[in-house]
Order: sequence, then C-alpha cells, then structure tokens
Amino acid sequence: MAVQVIRYQSPSRQTTHEAQWGVVFGDKVTPLPGSFPTTGDFVKHGLQAARSAAARDATLALADLAVLSPVTSNQQFVCQGINYPSHVRESGMDPDKLPFNTIFTKASSCLSGPFDDVIRPRHVRLLDYEIELGLVLKTDLLDEVSVRADNLHEYLAGVTIVNDVSARDVQLPQGQFYKGKSYRTFGPVGPYLLLLEPSEWKRWPELRMTLEVNGEVRQQDFCGGMVNQPHKTLTELSGLQNLHAGDLIATGTPAGCAARAPGRLPMLAAKVFLSEAQKWHIFIKGGLRNPKYLQPNDVMTLSIKTDDGALDLGMQRTKIVAQTSHRS
Amino acid sequence: MAVQVIRYQSPSRQTTHEAQWGVVFGDKVTPLPGSFPTTGDFVKHGLQAARSAAARDATLALADLAVLSPVTSNQQFVCQGINYPSHVRESGMDPDKLPFNTIFTKASSCLSGPFDDVIRPRHVRLLDYEIELGLVLKTDLLDEVSVRADNLHEYLAGVTIVNDVSARDVQLPQGQFYKGKSYRTFGPVGPYLLLLEPSEWKRWPELRMTLEVNGEVRQQDFCGGMVNQPHKTLTELSGLQNLHAGDLIATGTPAGCAARAPGRLPMLAAKVFLSEAQKWHIFIKGGLRNPKYLQPNDVMTLSIKTDDGALDLGMQRTKIVAQTSHRS
Repeated sequence: MAVQVIRYQSPSRQTTHEAQWGVVFGDKVTPLPGSFPTTGDFVKHGLQAARSAAARDATLALADLAVLSPVTSNQQFVCQGINYPSHVRESGMDPDKLPFNTIFTKASSCLSGPFDDVIRPRHVRLLDYEIELGLVLKTDLLDEVSVRADNLHEYLAGVTIVNDVSARDVQLPQGQFYKGKSYRTFGPVGPYLLLLEPSEWKRWPELRMTLEVNGEVRQQDFCGGMVNQPHKTLTELSGLQNLHAGDLIATGTPAGCAARAPGRLPMLAAKVFLSEAQKWHIFIKGGLRNPKYLQPNDVMTLSIKTDDGALDLGMQRTKIVAQTSHRS
Repeated sequence: MAVQVIRYQSPSRQTTHEAQWGVVFGDKVTPLPGSFPTTGDFVKHGLQAARSAAARDATLALADLAVLSPVTSNQQFVCQGINYPSHVRESGMDPDKLPFNTIFTKASSCLSGPFDDVIRPRHVRLLDYEIELGLVLKTDLLDEVSVRADNLHEYLAGVTIVNDVSARDVQLPQGQFYKGKSYRTFGPVGPYLLLLEPSEWKRWPELRMTLEVNGEVRQQDFCGGMVNQPHKTLTELSGLQNLHAGDLIATGTPAGCAARAPGRLPMLAAKVFLSEAQKWHIFIKGGLRNPKYLQPNDVMTLSIKTDDGALDLGMQRTKIVAQTSHRS
C-alpha cells in the first residue's frame, strides 16, 4: 500500500535542528528513526523504515508539525514544459508541432514548503500557477538507461505535488524559462512524498490534479493526459545528464493557467508588423486586465489523487504575499 | 599577484582517491595541504594556503598531472546568454531590443576537465563552441545584495575559462537552451582557477578571449564588451536565487560561433508562410553544409588573458570525439 511520507520540523525543535521524517496515518504521524539530511539520503536509506512504520506508533499530531518540502534544496529541480495538449493549445501552439520533450530547470533554492507563503517579487505583475505531478528519483542515474513503462519502480521512489509558480512577465518575454520560474518560494512541493508499491506505479495516469484559487477550480485533469510519459522522460534525461537519488522531475501542467497564448499572436498582421517588444507590451497590458493572475492574499489549494483515494498525495495550500521591501 | 590554481589527480593516486589542489609556477606545481572535496570547500577554506604557496615548494611537474575542472559537479552552473552585441547580431537579433539579462543553466554533470574529450552525442549534427569568462563565487549569496563594480572581490574568488559547448540542432529548435547545452562533457572548464587580488578585479574587461579550432581563430574579443557586467549579474541573480561558494557563472560568448541567425529568418515571406518546423528544417539543412560546426577529431584551444600576461587563465585544449555506442 502507498505510504504518505512527510518531512517536518517538530515544534519542540529549533529551526537550527535537523528536520525529521515521518509517516502519516490519518491525522497522526509516526516519526521515523534515523537522520536523513537530504531527500537523497532518505530515499537511499529510509524507505525500509517508512514502509515498516506502524500506525500504533503515530504519536505526533500532524496539525502540530511544520511540514516542509519533501524535496531538499540540494536536489536538482528538472521540469518538463508544455507537456499536456490542453496547455499547449492554450499557449497558442499546436501540440502536433512540438515533436520534442521541452526540458528546463528551476533553481533549487525556490523549493518551499507545502504551506509556506509564495512571495511575489516587487517587479512581477503577472504571477501564475501550474499544478504538476512531481517524480522523485530513487537511484542515481549516471549513464543512459532505457526505462520502460513497467519498471518505473526501479528508478522512482514516489510522487509529490509541485506548483511550478511562474512570473509570466519575466518568463515569456525573456524566452528562457529559468529566471521567471526560479524566484525564491516559486516551488512549493508536497505535502507528501507518496511512496508507491511496484504494482501501484501503473496507476499514475489515473491521478487527478486539481488546483483551486480562492476555492475556484482553475486546473483539473488526469496525469494520464501527458504527452511525454515518465519512462520516456527518464530515458531521455539519463542520456543527457546525471540524476541523483532524491532529485525532482516536474512533469508539466494541464490547461487552466492564467496566461494565454504567450509569445504568439495568431494574427497575420501582428506576425509581420509588430516587433517582439511590441508584442510583449500587448501581452503584458492584456495580462494586467486578466483577473486570473495571482494577487496578494490569494490562496491556492492543490491536490493530486486517484478518484478511489488509494493514491493520495495530500493537499497543498499556499498564500500569495507581496515582497514588501528590499531584503538586503 | 594573481594565483593560478589547479585541481588535479596526481599519477600516483587511483581515480578513487580524492583530487588535489595546487598552485602553478611555470611548469611546476606546489601541492596544497588540506582536503577540499568541492570547489566550495576550496574557496571557503583553501584560499589562504593558495596565496601563501611558494615556488620553492613546487615539487610536481605540471605535465605529469591530470588536470581536472576547477569547478566540481556539485556546484551550480549558471549561464548568461546573448551577452555580447557581436554575438547578438550574428544570432539575427538586435542588441538594443534585448533589454534583459538572459539567464539559463547547464546541468552540472556536463562539467569536464580542460583537456578531456568532448563527446558529440549520436543524434547531434550541429555541434558548436562558445568561449566564455567563468566567474567563481567566493561566498554564499542567500539574499539580495547590491554588488558594485568596485567590490567584486568581496563576492568572487576568481575566474576560469568555460567552453559552453552547444548542440545547436537541439538547443535552438527546442527553444529552451538547457537540453542542447547540458550533454555530458559539454562544459570543459579550466585549466586554472585564477585567484585575483582585490586591486586586479578592475582589469577583467582587458581579458582577451581567443578560441581556435584546428589552429584557426574563430572567436576573439575582450571581456569588456559584455553587456550585462559581473556586478549587475551578481546583483540580479542574488535577488532571484541562492548561490553558493564555488558556483560558476558563465558570462556569455562573443561573435564567431558556427551557428548563424538561429531561429529568425529575416525575410518577410519566411515570417509569414513558413511553419516553425519548416524554418528549423531549413536551419539544420544549412548547418549541415557549414564547415565550421565541430566534427570528430577537431581540436579546440581556448585562452583568456590580458595582453600584458599579468592575468592568464591558461590554455584549454579539447578534442571532439563521436559517441560510438549506446552506453548503458
């Protein structure tokens, strides 16, 4: 059966103390023995303890714990872009004309907890959300491997909820996605690292993602709609770069973001006569009238689970706050 | 006076043994005491030893040592794009219409030694080079700081040569630069981490970059031509993400790459009537006839130094080899 793991700071410990790992049983938590400073340490050495944790040892109240991102900031944060046809179309592109797997990264320092505030930088006006299924690696991949749909469990420890928060007015005009998606707090992850049994991995397409803003459903889709599936992405990435146990791969978002048609105006006249700068000026001006972009005090709630509840990655809840002053 | 530091594997040690650090005096090397597994460890704890190393202790012959990248693969590899007007123009863009600092990353696993082979992946046909000045951080930057042109020495330990090797037929058609620039061995760095005195930092604009392929000069320019200078980039990056001691920032390349006008065909007809796929097909077809793209057995030599030789980052020399077989 799938195991819901959290990383947390217990209230009795100072923030200078090490975070702990535990297994969730309803509203209680069984603390795990052992010290796992990083997600890599945990998935390499802590999975057995997590699987054998018992509900009778659930001595902590989940509500008392400060739940942290289950992915630590030493790990890589690799992302897939435009990986759901519905999101490709709302971005003004044709899914059939993207015959590749778009890969980019977010700075790992943007990783933040599942209940932490998301800080909107002073200069950002078009702040957007993207719910994504996050894959957490179990092993190091230091050479090219051919992963199959039926042996994901050999490479992946589990799944978690990722919000790929994005400053559209930075990301899109500047072309490269890294900067607009890497501001500190732009990567809320968790609450749970859901460890799947080998037999459960085949159910990932049934995971239903739902993102609400202030209680209004903005995104809802099944993970099975993604174009480049996990085994294909793991195979390609392993041929490109080293990946390490505990690293995070965010697999892209479905339709429903605030942003529309970034970067491409469909009209022939615009294509011919407008400069890039003019096009982006129009894009941003339109965005400022779009009420779906996130504003301070907006609350995002994200969940990913199968409809039968057998696989449940928990509920992430974050609030937008404005960056108020120069922090240095 | 500037100090030329190398990281190396001495021939008497197995590759499983730890790499060493040393200071270069002509063709001899003074080994440094202490263990510094990462570049971060070295710049935090080894700079004093490096500055006080003496030529009389230079017991090793440089020629006997396997010189490694002075930046270790745990560090971040952040890059600036299109940062020299000459390269912007040859890329088919107008430097005046890029009012931002393009930032992307390379996977740190692409870091390789200054004399290691560069492996051209089987599917890559348009392999290109980019000489760049690499900045190596001295301190952690965990919050926004305002760096000035006259206090770079407070944030940077030194400079090194970076070759931002790029698969243009992956990088450009796929839009996001990460994948096409991250293949293993696509980041030769070194040979020297050149530690500068505080008073020497003001001379970075005088550093002259030269890249040759098989003895033919392809790129030559002064670092001073860059648009977004180091203090500006450090300030902006510190407001975006955490940086750590030992991290590497590659500051962009001047004109002279094999690639020309990626992604933008100037003709009105092309803008209107060709699909993206058709444009990239034309780009790649043209590239295959361009003899400047790197081929197996091509040798790249890269140097960066001031004309008076006071600041000399050494000579990097790498050879292209074809990836021959599936490696898993």
